[in-house]
Amino acid sequence: MTTQNTQAPLRLGIAGLGTVGAGVIKIIRSQAEQIAARSGRAVEITAVSARSKDKDRGVPLSSYAWEDDPVKLAARDDIDVFVELMGGSDGPAKAATEAALAAGKDVVTANKALLAIHGHALAAQAENNGKTIRFEAAVAGGIPVMKSLTEGLAGNEITRVMGVMNGTCNYILTRMESAGLPYAEVFEEANKLGYLEADPTLDVGGIDAGHKLALLAAVAFGTQVNFNNVALEGIDNVTIDDIRQAADMGYRIKLLGVAQMTGRGQEMRMSPCLVPAASPLGQLEGATNMVVLEGNRVGQIVLRGAGAGEGPTASAVMSDVIELARGSRIKTFGVPVDSLQSAPAAQASAPAAYYLRLSLQDKPGALAKVAAILGEAGLSIDRMRQYDHSDTPIAPVLIVTHRASREVLEAAMTGLEGTGVVEGTPVALRIEEV
Amino acid sequence: MTTQNTQAPLRLGIAGLGTVGAGVIKIIRSQAEQIAARSGRAVEITAVSARSKDKDRGVPLSSYAWEDDPVKLAARDDIDVFVELMGGSDGPAKAATEAALAAGKDVVTANKALLAIHGHALAAQAENNGKTIRFEAAVAGGIPVMKSLTEGLAGNEITRVMGVMNGTCNYILTRMESAGLPYAEVFEEANKLGYLEADPTLDVGGIDAGHKLALLAAVAFGTQVNFNNVALEGIDNVTIDDIRQAADMGYRIKLLGVAQMTGRGQEMRMSPCLVPAASPLGQLEGATNMVVLEGNRVGQIVLRGAGAGEGPTASAVMSDVIELARGSRIKTFGVPVDSLQSAPAAQASAPAAYYLRLSLQDKPGALAKVAAILGEAGLSIDRMRQYDHSDTPIAPVLIVTHRASREVLEAAMTGLEGTGVVEGTPVALRIEEV
Repeated sequence: MTTQNTQAPLRLGIAGLGTVGAGVIKIIRSQAEQIAARSGRAVEITAVSARSKDKDRGVPLSSYAWEDDPVKLAARDDIDVFVELMGGSDGPAKAATEAALAAGKDVVTANKALLAIHGHALAAQAENNGKTIRFEAAVAGGIPVMKSLTEGLAGNEITRVMGVMNGTCNYILTRMESAGLPYAEVFEEANKLGYLEADPTLDVGGIDAGHKLALLAAVAFGTQVNFNNVALEGIDNVTIDDIRQAADMGYRIKLLGVAQMTGRGQEMRMSPCLVPAASPLGQLEGATNMVVLEGNRVGQIVLRGAGAGEGPTASAVMSDVIELARGSRIKTFGVPVDSLQSAPAAQASAPAAYYLRLSLQDKPGALAKVAAILGEAGLSIDRMRQYDHSDTPIAPVLIVTHRASREVLEAAMTGLEGTGVVEGTPVALRIEEV
Repeated sequence: MTTQNTQAPLRLGIAGLGTVGAGVIKIIRSQAEQIAARSGRAVEITAVSARSKDKDRGVPLSSYAWEDDPVKLAARDDIDVFVELMGGSDGPAKAATEAALAAGKDVVTANKALLAIHGHALAAQAENNGKTIRFEAAVAGGIPVMKSLTEGLAGNEITRVMGVMNGTCNYILTRMESAGLPYAEVFEEANKLGYLEADPTLDVGGIDAGHKLALLAAVAFGTQVNFNNVALEGIDNVTIDDIRQAADMGYRIKLLGVAQMTGRGQEMRMSPCLVPAASPLGQLEGATNMVVLEGNRVGQIVLRGAGAGEGPTASAVMSDVIELARGSRIKTFGVPVDSLQSAPAAQASAPAAYYLRLSLQDKPGALAKVAAILGEAGLSIDRMRQYDHSDTPIAPVLIVTHRASREVLEAAMTGLEGTGVVEGTPVALRIEEV
């Protein structure tokens, strides 16, 4: 222990010099002494790689070797850790990560897509080479959630994990509410502000947040990461009316991820849900992220912070780098790859109350017909409201159901569409007990 | 890495078998396989010690060696880690911890008082022997705050740490508000519920929370732990009227710890403060704890969870135990003892707005006199209210000041006491920008 400071520096190769890469370089340059004190050894950058060598990134690069090819960078003899900040589930990010592991490097990555899809194979490759992949920055940005889960709550059986982990979606939903604007308008606003990915369905379709949930679930429950088993639903069907009605009833709508093990398999959902307005999740505003971890011993732990951005994401990358510099050797998903279970997707999600919105034709007996169909399907009504519609022949109807399984709900929804009194497709949002 | 599971088990000696000790034993007995998978090796209990051997603690102890003397337990050849759960800043806890370190054991402790007062010397002793002291359970119970700070935010310069870290005080303050009861009555209630320490000033005087703040500050700023430099103020002067007036103005009163480095030294305060009702700290109800960590890169991270109790505290102890089982060797306060700075206490706290409550005699010109004295002291008034007092000759007056230094405030307070129109001692509570 007293000899740690005589250890050789930990040498990094960084691929990808966007805002996060530049942020990592800034931290290493400006806080070198502090990092060395905390790590027990110096942390140095040996080589970097990005698409364009000439772009000004606000940080001097001349003291680092340059590689055009990230795969070459990853395998260099003079690096110990490959820091992958390129992004993308395949292509150069995957090739370079595989090359790094093959060459006996540890890997630090912010790439949720890569790990959510190829994480199991990569973890196995890492373990076979006595190395590990760290990915704190891939989930909820600056919030130390992977560390809290893998290490801080290591004495717990995790019973449930929840999270609002896409800042753009939370921005859109809270902005719709505060400004009273429709989805399409706020979507355009977010686009102009540069909040959306090049392919916006990654955000608003829940894919990005779904990647994060798949990673959280694997570590929480010791299961093989499996993004395909995440039930995804985007926020594009949520209307300003839904938000207002939910608020009237004491709820707010969030793109919420929930993962838990059930008797029916592993449940992973990323979908717009109603959560109590007074709960920490309900109170979350703007682009901030929140993750809720529940353990059999610790109860509920809530973590809140910036989910994206140069500083927060670079902070998470540095946490992993310093952990490796200290010599920590935690397995990629917290336990050996062999002991990760292959969990089937839950065939049904845990029962819940649902919020339904439907547009009813103003015909005699229409409401009775709706009630009858819900009753036949076994869906019991807690509250029902028909709204004023003097200027239109279509009546908005809101229903809050008692707890029911998803199958019962879907049977009822299918029934409604065949009645001839319901216009369009009804909207159903789960009410989550958080 | 692939050979970890062939390592010898990590052997624990546990001193103190109250609820937390029993909780640790339950986890180790019921989650052994999971812990081994996460640690890379088995974790076993070799020996235990407590005051009474015969007491039923709800866990079987017959397979562990028994020691009447914790000092003997700590030095046993057949333990690797000494788990200190006795409590108390001196006496057996200190003697046994020193004996464990002298015998070359790592130490895991939940003892905030011991470390807040003797932590620097103990950390030095640990380091000299190549060992470490882990104390996740000592601060904010089940919340993985030490791990988040030392490791999760290791790439940051920490700029400020805040926390509501005494569940009993937060219970009393929120119960006063929700039930509209005076302090003395809720204090008695809490006492009957067993929420208070044997010496209740440890809770309501802010001492227990102050110990935690001293530990957080040492790790956050790389300074020598120094409980004597914490400016302490208890909650016993907070009235139900203060709570109501604060609520009227959009604030709630919390026993809040704040630590930061300033140009004037290290500021550590544990005192009742007004915080915005809409902030995460303001929304914290009941016995829950919350810690806010602010870093130059990550921004603000908020952590929330149970601050006490068998399960949460045992969870934190196990986090440290599993960390040691994995072979992690982080220094006691995050950096080598030699590099911990000796920081002088800030001679003045950062300027803030203050809430003042005073009882004014109903004489002509009394209010003008108060205003004049505040003006002379340089204390500028933001808002002022005099309340209805038709049934008494004493008028309650509330003042919210503009930002001022503590010295200006105190000069004004002293001035008020000499006016002859103010009854008793005015109350001043800081308004914290969280």
